[in-house]
Amino acid sequence: MNILIVYAHPEAKSLNGALKDFSVAHLQQAGHQVQVSDLYAMHWKTTLDADDTQQRLDPLHFDASKESRHAFANGQQSADIAAEQAKLLWADAVIFQFPLWWFSMPAIMKGWFDRVYAYGFAYGVGEHSDTRWGNRYGEGSMQGKRAMLVVTSGGWESHYSERGINGPMADLLFPIHHGMLHYPGFDVLPPFLVHRTSRVDEDRYATLAHALGQRLDTLFSETPIAFRAQNGGDYQIPQLTLRDDVAPGQTGFHAHVIPHRP
Amino acid sequence: MNILIVYAHPEAKSLNGALKDFSVAHLQQAGHQVQVSDLYAMHWKTTLDADDTQQRLDPLHFDASKESRHAFANGQQSADIAAEQAKLLWADAVIFQFPLWWFSMPAIMKGWFDRVYAYGFAYGVGEHSDTRWGNRYGEGSMQGKRAMLVVTSGGWESHYSERGINGPMADLLFPIHHGMLHYPGFDVLPPFLVHRTSRVDEDRYATLAHALGQRLDTLFSETPIAFRAQNGGDYQIPQLTLRDDVAPGQTGFHAHVIPHRP
Repeated sequence: MNILIVYAHPEAKSLNGALKDFSVAHLQQAGHQVQVSDLYAMHWKTTLDADDTQQRLDPLHFDASKESRHAFANGQQSADIAAEQAKLLWADAVIFQFPLWWFSMPAIMKGWFDRVYAYGFAYGVGEHSDTRWGNRYGEGSMQGKRAMLVVTSGGWESHYSERGINGPMADLLFPIHHGMLHYPGFDVLPPFLVHRTSRVDEDRYATLAHALGQRLDTLFSETPIAFRAQNGGDYQIPQLTLRDDVAPGQTGFHAHVIPHRP
Repeated sequence: MNILIVYAHPEAKSLNGALKDFSVAHLQQAGHQVQVSDLYAMHWKTTLDADDTQQRLDPLHFDASKESRHAFANGQQSADIAAEQAKLLWADAVIFQFPLWWFSMPAIMKGWFDRVYAYGFAYGVGEHSDTRWGNRYGEGSMQGKRAMLVVTSGGWESHYSERGINGPMADLLFPIHHGMLHYPGFDVLPPFLVHRTSRVDEDRYATLAHALGQRLDTLFSETPIAFRAQNGGDYQIPQLTLRDDVAPGQTGFHAHVIPHRP
């Protein structure tokens, strides 16, 4: 299969660099084709701005969405954006690997999403009607592809637990899992997490690499997070609130995950 | 008082630009001193990297935290970073204004936090012991200052409601409110939110500006979000989980907010 790794870390000789290299080798040994978007090494342009389109729709007033739609539809996107979109279309699975900085991804990767996720490609796809609100949240350009986060954090696992001070990791990652990956149609796998990165010695690294290898081996068989589909009947349209009989009384992120059936 | 507006939008002739200009004028008319960090206009360097320190601690291996600590402690930070820190120290209140892109801030503002929030300035402050885990989550360099988000979104308010498909706005903003503002000690005010930005005509703009003006008038009197203090007795140290008798049975983001007393 074809696997894209989108990777953001400023130092190759780091835990992140080692785990990324391990993933590439492990996936290739299993017979997969692998591409890596090493954002720091590529000097990825982080900031979305008027230079992202080769020919402006409106040279006097920059509207990010309208310019993105126009550039995407007319082959006028910046070449670096189009190249990343081509990698996404090529991939059967995408791994996003980054250190958790301020409870989210580094700016360079946020800028990858801001710029590569064009209008007509990742949003503004499909028709709006009484029964559909665009192809998103379970449908879209990434439908049929899988995505998984690999995230390292300096903090302790307990700090990110259900009652930990940072908030539960699953909730901190919800805007990424649900809002950036489920949104354009990816099947989102549970993340691979590494905590207390300052305390990784050779033994622990071997354990981590082994565990990551197991996750890579099951990339195409593991059960994705059961996020609800927007147009599957669970939501009122156009309000896009859960119907009263769906997860009755529940609020917040967890209401958008179909519970396990015992 | 001294008020800093950190602002991220690529087009001056936009709703965001108009609201930012309104805020500056309104605050100045009220007698405040105002500085604006207009990140796009400043061509803010978005990506944290080895160029952020003028003299490397270790030229062969870039460790972001260690280099940040060394540069901050020894006056070797990049000048743009030191200038933003000086503005933060000058300010009595800070407003962060941005459009919601992919359920978070634009990359250019994430890069402002990644780079300006240095080790020794915004994290790694204070001592760790059996009763304290550093000066953070209610203590730190920003203690005594107020912060407020001004956030615009294209989506409908119902899409961000308690059972809305995007997740509740308060939860989407928790990693910013709690993890980036409460963390270094800010008192965090409820956000000022604008939804359906594509449907703002003159009448609605006047209503929005009036409401924003009222929020600016009460910047120093409004009650902040009641996030719990890390070292105030509610958390076990070093696990940093809520003590069993605090918000018993509660999990997730809301457990870290002290409930209203009726």
